[in-house]
Amino acid sequence: MSEFDVKDHPHRRYNPLTGDWVLVSPHRAKRPWQGQVEAPATDDIPHYDSSCFLCPGNKRITGDINPVYSKPYVFTNDFAALHQDTPVASRNDDGLFVLASERGTSRVVCYSPDHSLTMPELSNEQLVALIHEWIQQYRELSQHYAWVQVFENKGAINGCSNPHPHGQIWACSSIPTLPARTDAAQQQYLAQHGKNLLLTYVERELADGARTVVQNEYWLVVVPYWASWPFETLLLPKAHVTRMEELSAPQQAALADILKQITIRYDNLFQCAFPYSMGWHVAPYTQQFQEAAARAHWLLHCHFYPPLLRSATVKKFMVGYEMMAETQRDMTPEQAAERLRQQSPIHYKSAQK
Amino acid sequence: MSEFDVKDHPHRRYNPLTGDWVLVSPHRAKRPWQGQVEAPATDDIPHYDSSCFLCPGNKRITGDINPVYSKPYVFTNDFAALHQDTPVASRNDDGLFVLASERGTSRVVCYSPDHSLTMPELSNEQLVALIHEWIQQYRELSQHYAWVQVFENKGAINGCSNPHPHGQIWACSSIPTLPARTDAAQQQYLAQHGKNLLLTYVERELADGARTVVQNEYWLVVVPYWASWPFETLLLPKAHVTRMEELSAPQQAALADILKQITIRYDNLFQCAFPYSMGWHVAPYTQQFQEAAARAHWLLHCHFYPPLLRSATVKKFMVGYEMMAETQRDMTPEQAAERLRQQSPIHYKSAQK
Ligand SMILES: O=P(O)(O)O[C@H]1O[C@H](CO)[C@@H](O)[C@H](O)[C@H]1O
Ligand SMILES: O=P(O)(O)O[C@H]1O[C@H](CO)[C@@H](O)[C@H](O)[C@H]1O
Repeated sequence: MSEFDVKDHPHRRYNPLTGDWVLVSPHRAKRPWQGQVEAPATDDIPHYDSSCFLCPGNKRITGDINPVYSKPYVFTNDFAALHQDTPVASRNDDGLFVLASERGTSRVVCYSPDHSLTMPELSNEQLVALIHEWIQQYRELSQHYAWVQVFENKGAINGCSNPHPHGQIWACSSIPTLPARTDAAQQQYLAQHGKNLLLTYVERELADGARTVVQNEYWLVVVPYWASWPFETLLLPKAHVTRMEELSAPQQAALADILKQITIRYDNLFQCAFPYSMGWHVAPYTQQFQEAAARAHWLLHCHFYPPLLRSATVKKFMVGYEMMAETQRDMTPEQAAERLRQQSPIHYKSAQK
Repeated sequence: MSEFDVKDHPHRRYNPLTGDWVLVSPHRAKRPWQGQVEAPATDDIPHYDSSCFLCPGNKRITGDINPVYSKPYVFTNDFAALHQDTPVASRNDDGLFVLASERGTSRVVCYSPDHSLTMPELSNEQLVALIHEWIQQYRELSQHYAWVQVFENKGAINGCSNPHPHGQIWACSSIPTLPARTDAAQQQYLAQHGKNLLLTYVERELADGARTVVQNEYWLVVVPYWASWPFETLLLPKAHVTRMEELSAPQQAALADILKQITIRYDNLFQCAFPYSMGWHVAPYTQQFQEAAARAHWLLHCHFYPPLLRSATVKKFMVGYEMMAETQRDMTPEQAAERLRQQSPIHYKSAQK
């Protein structure tokens, strides 16, 4: 029998943040695809669209009128999934019918007044302004809520109904399922190993390099060893930072740079506005995490979960086996990292000009 | 302040099988949808398609020729995600780089020689034949593997590349992430409450009725209290059964009936071949579960996870918040159950004839 080869043989990898395993089937990318093909993302989007709910000066569905903004603009979602005044209730019947009311809010963050731009096309200055806005939002919402989820759904294929560059912030009074799991895992790692889980991971990845996509002085982007999505990446600081409010000005400027670097490479991979869901995990805001020492186990990080697999129009379906048993991927994280690393640092649109 | 009302107010519900919570925002279904619209499933599919890899007598991509089958036909996937001869290897480096090779197999189960039929259109006799085949597969694969995952991806929107009625079986040497979690939860519930988790749940749902979609003498279908997907259902036996091999002939006949009943209502809801991923969870096959007493905490069950939300062309996107924080749903499980319950027991296609 042949020796085990990570590039050839089915294996499982363990995600130390969630406790989930992922089945890696490196050879599966070779199978022919006869299934659903997605509509490619359009490239020629106007700078201003009079029917867009997010463009400056336009009327929203509620009748509210957007200001003529020039910096990032934030407003409360007109169809928020969470409300700040929900009456309190909880039930636990038999451990089977368990329910608790949830308070929160849901905001929309317009990145730029220009309808046509996406993250890789924003200037470093605009990205720094966005980071400032995120920090401002964390400061404000953390006064009222235990968890502040900053995220972005990009691309129609990913449930985003408007190409205007924007993200969302949902804040809520409980720590949601996934960050609760991540928090516990980081806590346990520190207890067991006496080291910060993700900071140790950063050191190891920097020493190795096989999964590195881009890096700068303060930040590292890798395809994590346990990636679920084909071109999933994890953005990590190189120093111990638990919340965005802790970032120094140079760290913020370097964050703008790395966000541009990773999203440019994403767009270049299939020469399209590369869809993804992006989201930040930072130390929660309950009383328990107030002292810096109580956040020793945390490292802030940002996930990119892009659905595309083979081209601008063929995505990875997380269906049957993935929903019932566990996530399965069709190439190794090292192979994905190599393809992303090889991309030009110049955005394909400006290269074409 | 008003009283808490489950039909109006955002709340979270707890899934006792996985430990996950789901955020329920009952009012969210009212928001307008301007996002991606899916291609509707086609209705006029021929009984035989010469280019189909699954039709009787046709040549597959490997050159193998399908027999002219009349009963369910099973073969090994030409691009299997798992192989039976993978060399053994495992690594645990720092608890961060954890990997283990995995052996298994992946099979395709053609439900019927007729290319055009889907589960709700199969006769009870054909469904009983499919159940016999599943039992046969469990018997055989359980000799070699710890976990046998029977599932079906239906619909192009759900990653299924061929309308020919078929499902899959992936068997593997480890117990995958989700069933491992489910097993532990059932075990713990028995230890804590002295009762079988899902059997207690069945009793409670039968007494209540608000989430019941259909039932017969031996089986119950509910939208579970903790459903993630808009029209997710859970199919459960009314008596203690841990594996499909344990089903009596009357229980098998009743299973054929209930599979037809639930899938007919699914198709009738939006008058289309309703897409879903379906999968069975049965007690694992490791040594530990060999004695019936060691399976006292288990109840076999079948999940249906359908992606559609509003119509045959608008699905629920599980993206940003769902991927980063926790699943969010736009109506209560009780509302979903009521809509499914109201559907005619006659398939819309035969009603049109
Ligand atoms: O094996 P199939 O049907 O070609 O592939 C489909 O089901 C698999 C198992 O759920 C998934 O991993 C694939 O992403 C999906 O396209
Ligand atoms: O709020 P949006 O962008 O309209 O909606 C989108 O993002 C939400 C949060 O991830 C999801 O719950 C919705 O399914 C998706 O369509």
